[in-house]
Amino acid sequence: MLQISQRGQAMPASPIRKLVPYAEAAKKRGTKVYHLNIGQPDIETPKMVLDAVRHSDFKVLEYSHSAGNESYRKKLVGYYESVGVKVNHNQIIITTGGSEAIQFGFMACLDPGDEVIIPEPFYANYNGFAVAAGVTVVPVTSFIENGFALPPIEEIEKKITPKTKAIVICNPNNPTGYLYSYEEMQQLRDIIRRHNLYLFSDEAYREFCYEGKQISAMHLEGVDDNVIIMDTISKRYSACGGRIGALITKNQMVLDAVMKFAQARLSPPSFAQIAAEAAIDLPADYFDETKAEYKSRRDLIVKRLNAMEGVFCPNPGGAFYAIAKLPIDDADVFCQWLLESFSYQNQTVMLAPATGFYGTAGLGKQEVRLAYVLNLNDINNAMNCLEQALKEYPNKK
Amino acid sequence: MLQISQRGQAMPASPIRKLVPYAEAAKKRGTKVYHLNIGQPDIETPKMVLDAVRHSDFKVLEYSHSAGNESYRKKLVGYYESVGVKVNHNQIIITTGGSEAIQFGFMACLDPGDEVIIPEPFYANYNGFAVAAGVTVVPVTSFIENGFALPPIEEIEKKITPKTKAIVICNPNNPTGYLYSYEEMQQLRDIIRRHNLYLFSDEAYREFCYEGKQISAMHLEGVDDNVIIMDTISKRYSACGGRIGALITKNQMVLDAVMKFAQARLSPPSFAQIAAEAAIDLPADYFDETKAEYKSRRDLIVKRLNAMEGVFCPNPGGAFYAIAKLPIDDADVFCQWLLESFSYQNQTVMLAPATGFYGTAGLGKQEVRLAYVLNLNDINNAMNCLEQALKEYPNKK
Repeated sequence: MLQISQRGQAMPASPIRKLVPYAEAAKKRGTKVYHLNIGQPDIETPKMVLDAVRHSDFKVLEYSHSAGNESYRKKLVGYYESVGVKVNHNQIIITTGGSEAIQFGFMACLDPGDEVIIPEPFYANYNGFAVAAGVTVVPVTSFIENGFALPPIEEIEKKITPKTKAIVICNPNNPTGYLYSYEEMQQLRDIIRRHNLYLFSDEAYREFCYEGKQISAMHLEGVDDNVIIMDTISKRYSACGGRIGALITKNQMVLDAVMKFAQARLSPPSFAQIAAEAAIDLPADYFDETKAEYKSRRDLIVKRLNAMEGVFCPNPGGAFYAIAKLPIDDADVFCQWLLESFSYQNQTVMLAPATGFYGTAGLGKQEVRLAYVLNLNDINNAMNCLEQALKEYPNKK
Repeated sequence: MLQISQRGQAMPASPIRKLVPYAEAAKKRGTKVYHLNIGQPDIETPKMVLDAVRHSDFKVLEYSHSAGNESYRKKLVGYYESVGVKVNHNQIIITTGGSEAIQFGFMACLDPGDEVIIPEPFYANYNGFAVAAGVTVVPVTSFIENGFALPPIEEIEKKITPKTKAIVICNPNNPTGYLYSYEEMQQLRDIIRRHNLYLFSDEAYREFCYEGKQISAMHLEGVDDNVIIMDTISKRYSACGGRIGALITKNQMVLDAVMKFAQARLSPPSFAQIAAEAAIDLPADYFDETKAEYKSRRDLIVKRLNAMEGVFCPNPGGAFYAIAKLPIDDADVFCQWLLESFSYQNQTVMLAPATGFYGTAGLGKQEVRLAYVLNLNDINNAMNCLEQALKEYPNKK
């Protein structure tokens, strides 16, 4: 019998997408579904970004440089400088989405059997990239009670073994929205220095911080060789379908190794590199408007959630996600029930059960992630649905 | 000391791209370099394919379905039917270039330590994807003397061990241009059936066959579960930078496993899927013109090469590559010398040493690969350079 690989079996199915068939069935029944389950922003991609592609006039859709167009990387140097990150264009490798940056980083730095420590809940696809690379994810739990702050440094240190090669953070965080403080980033700096670890820092949501400012892993001193940034334009410019990201590091050995993986897959997408390059020329106040929009959505969703009986939602400092604790038995069952058995004024809401974001089995069973990627009116309607659903749901806790 | 991974070390550098710095230096000296070293066609991407993107009017550059847009996959069903391959749209997973199709196939079907048999010389990046997947490439040598025909089936069978999981072919072949015959494809069918192996068939150059017609691995009977096609629009429509490929199989277990890898990386590029979908509507005679152009180039380059003293170049049946045996000591040294120390009428030629396409060390030392991706006039000029170079090169054999 032909068999698939063990890693093909071990590969996790997307915890976000597994409810899709239930949502499709609900829509077929004529129920409107508010999608708070996935980080696909409704914000329009800036017109000048799309127009750069639409007005392009090349004759041959050629491979680009394996590291991405030099003109784009050179312009990115200026962008990174504007966020306090000093790199040259040879320290930037353009990837096919942030996804490929994670994959390249894991492949180039980690071997099968190696361990990476990740504060949980974490972006579920880190699991997939870890399985693909044969790497073991070691979760350190952060808690909703203190807004998912970085776990105490002693808890992280307890998890370090001779096989530990890296710590992975996402800052501001998907799925919690937590923004790491200056002190926390210093603690991370100390620990990676003391134990000689890589720090993979996923900074996809850099611009979306609503009170404080993001501290990039590249702002940390004395750890130039340890830090690898995984970045993407997907959320920044609402350009998820472009599939343009970047891996950034000052570690030349890592750059050399990553380049070999980059060459094997030839090049990142050419059309979207044109868009991404144009995005650097957006006016300086571009993010102000987007940020203001997300902030008002966050304020609304957090307020609405905390006003529901038995619901707790800490105020996230960044990104466009919030995790809420609900008075229910099992978030997976509840989220499926929302789509399968519930509607309010012929509407319902699709949420992501938080279980999929925890590495430790059994955690997050009462929690859901909400992506506030809908306008204020839709968020209000979605919250009306959720409020009503919590009253009707039979398995309350 | 922070270290890169063992697989990062083992990852081969691109054998095609390693001469690039010498080419750049030659250009800086004012020497014109004819690039026959890389499969980047000069053929214009069809205007209607590019226009489909330029005339698009969406507002948000969204993620697509992880398997690619359903509308595109449904149209592809018709394309595949036109080449005698009967599949439904759920048996097609759109990938980021053919590269990702190879990667997904290896990851989903093969585990670290598994072996894949590949007739050599072969597409060098199979090595990279094998290293990334922890898989061992077992080469079976094909020979320039008989035009790189499939090695005798006994030779292939000798290489099969309990760890062998798959055979990989590229048909028509990169780098040899060889087109597998009906009999050879039947032999492959028998062997994968007898030994229960996957057959990964890279069919990137399907349309470019100059005498016979390509036999797709999906034309083989009784091996539906064994066959996995890796495909791409890169060469077909001269759209290499789009990064749109496909993995096609009727094996549901493989499709399910591949989908998990596809979901982890979210989606293939959105812009280029629009282009790829438009390409299906190209007039039926689109390939006639392109094929006629490549055929005249092939005829010219093969004629010119065989007219040079001591040079032998078999007539390739497909793709747009030829391998030639030259009267030299070492193709790597010679190709570097062409860029570093030689010019003729202020021009030189860049070739790919064939050593990088062999898995067996020491083979291909007198061979080079030529990609006939330049117009007839440029090919003639490049051949003038090569002819002169072979007269001047000090280390003849």
